[in-house]
Amino acid sequence: MFRVSIAVLCGGVGAARFLDGLVRVVDPAEVTAIVNVADDAVFHGLHVSPDVDTILYTLAGMVDEGTGWGIRDDTHEVQAALARLGRETWFQLGDTDIATHLHRTALLREGLPLSAVTARLAEAFGVRVRVLPASDEREETHVRTDDGWLAFQDYFVRRRQRDAVREIRFDGPLTPGPGVREAVAGARVVIVAPSNPLVSIGPILAITGLRGALAATRAPVVAVSPIVGGEAIKGPAAAMLASLGHDVSPAGVARLYADFLDVMVIDERDAALAGAVAATGARPVAAPTIMRDAAAKERLARAVLDAATAHA
Amino acid sequence: MFRVSIAVLCGGVGAARFLDGLVRVVDPAEVTAIVNVADDAVFHGLHVSPDVDTILYTLAGMVDEGTGWGIRDDTHEVQAALARLGRETWFQLGDTDIATHLHRTALLREGLPLSAVTARLAEAFGVRVRVLPASDEREETHVRTDDGWLAFQDYFVRRRQRDAVREIRFDGPLTPGPGVREAVAGARVVIVAPSNPLVSIGPILAITGLRGALAATRAPVVAVSPIVGGEAIKGPAAAMLASLGHDVSPAGVARLYADFLDVMVIDERDAALAGAVAATGARPVAAPTIMRDAAAKERLARAVLDAATAHA
Repeated sequence: MFRVSIAVLCGGVGAARFLDGLVRVVDPAEVTAIVNVADDAVFHGLHVSPDVDTILYTLAGMVDEGTGWGIRDDTHEVQAALARLGRETWFQLGDTDIATHLHRTALLREGLPLSAVTARLAEAFGVRVRVLPASDEREETHVRTDDGWLAFQDYFVRRRQRDAVREIRFDGPLTPGPGVREAVAGARVVIVAPSNPLVSIGPILAITGLRGALAATRAPVVAVSPIVGGEAIKGPAAAMLASLGHDVSPAGVARLYADFLDVMVIDERDAALAGAVAATGARPVAAPTIMRDAAAKERLARAVLDAATAHA
Repeated sequence: MFRVSIAVLCGGVGAARFLDGLVRVVDPAEVTAIVNVADDAVFHGLHVSPDVDTILYTLAGMVDEGTGWGIRDDTHEVQAALARLGRETWFQLGDTDIATHLHRTALLREGLPLSAVTARLAEAFGVRVRVLPASDEREETHVRTDDGWLAFQDYFVRRRQRDAVREIRFDGPLTPGPGVREAVAGARVVIVAPSNPLVSIGPILAITGLRGALAATRAPVVAVSPIVGGEAIKGPAAAMLASLGHDVSPAGVARLYADFLDVMVIDERDAALAGAVAATGARPVAAPTIMRDAAAKERLARAVLDAATAHA
């Protein structure tokens, strides 16, 4: 088993699936997931951390594999009752999921920082990967659309990503959470998961000192392209890259990471785009990147680690 | 139909059942329930108002008739998940019930007073009785036991009322909620529901100005004894009266209300105790007080209203 400390910059579903493969080939205790929390939101007074939860539920084997988020076979009694009380329920919350948010919110109110709360949740779920919120403070993604600025979940869930995004803004103190900068600086391999570069990885890169730490590390920094065949594997990354004037391609993503990226893993069907990636300064490596099942996840993790090893 | 404004001082289950009978013989819009909130508590960050909820659920026809509280056929998925997260779950919360508490807590956080929140819940549940928390402020019952002072729900639910109560204390600003004093002063009939006189009615009587308003009103004040045959119909009232040196009898209860009580409705099987009740200054009226079914509830309501009318 590969035993070396690995830091992974993570959004939600794509990152969770990637981590699920990674822990099949490396000791989970060697892995630190640095997770976007800029699309955290409060619903019914509950602090919801969508990307953190997706990762915890996935690594705990509880995730709904169909959607990629939420808990498998969860019931929705609370949500149905909230709707009867006249509350807006466009953000889906299952009953077991609500227990997570109740626990998180109660611990936050007791004064625990989000990082400590997340560590407790990880422990309760038996997750051995170190899951670090990118920040303990309230970083908030807003997107400007033709209808004005929207809070991220308004854009993402309520309006179902139908608006063209004209601008992205990260509000907040942008202070790294405890251990985050150290995890990047101390890792022997840094991986950027196949997540939305603009609204999942972007808010992590906006945190003070992180871009610098990524540029400064002597460890290989390897990204997995979330764009395959000109489309995003999941979510609005393709439309968002396009509306903001970026190439909807692995090269377009590599360019966003140009100041720190060493290797870009692209899907084998995009092998023809290797030259465009190389032009951004990153070494292209083609591999099967679609994580259909456990074997595919594991294969991708191996390909990423091989690429990192080859580069180092 | 009896059309006259009625104020009812209420605890939980006994009061809820009494109100359920009352609204079968009077227009619910004429009834104001002034409800104890001194055993409200926060669980998992949720503000729970047990007596208010018991009354709302009962009047909405949603209550679990077996227990007298909680929602019929409610599921417990959230609670099971909270237990797996290591949280204490000795206070039972069903899933549909949790939605009530989430809504209440969210509205309180938005700055609405408890009275306004309660009005919104009543409206959502289709409850036409005016349900007023005795106070919008945080009144808190504590009981002294041989193990020291306990918060009310610690004594009542967690330790299952097994401790002898040596002393009772109501902490808080003890300010009446909006409309509470006016409801007592303006009522044509005031009823003290068959609730625990010490920890359900007691905290209401402790609120500034309420005892005075009860003593001053020219309307008849009629109580229903919660003690029948030397026992409490439900809950720890008998043990609590005894350990605090009161008679465990309708007369013992009448004595606690002596400064304002006009009529004490006692169970027909306690008819022999009429003299003792009369000695406290209240006129005793015997009636069947056990509310086994809808007919019995309605019969009790009629008996109470008849006693009030006879007195006026």
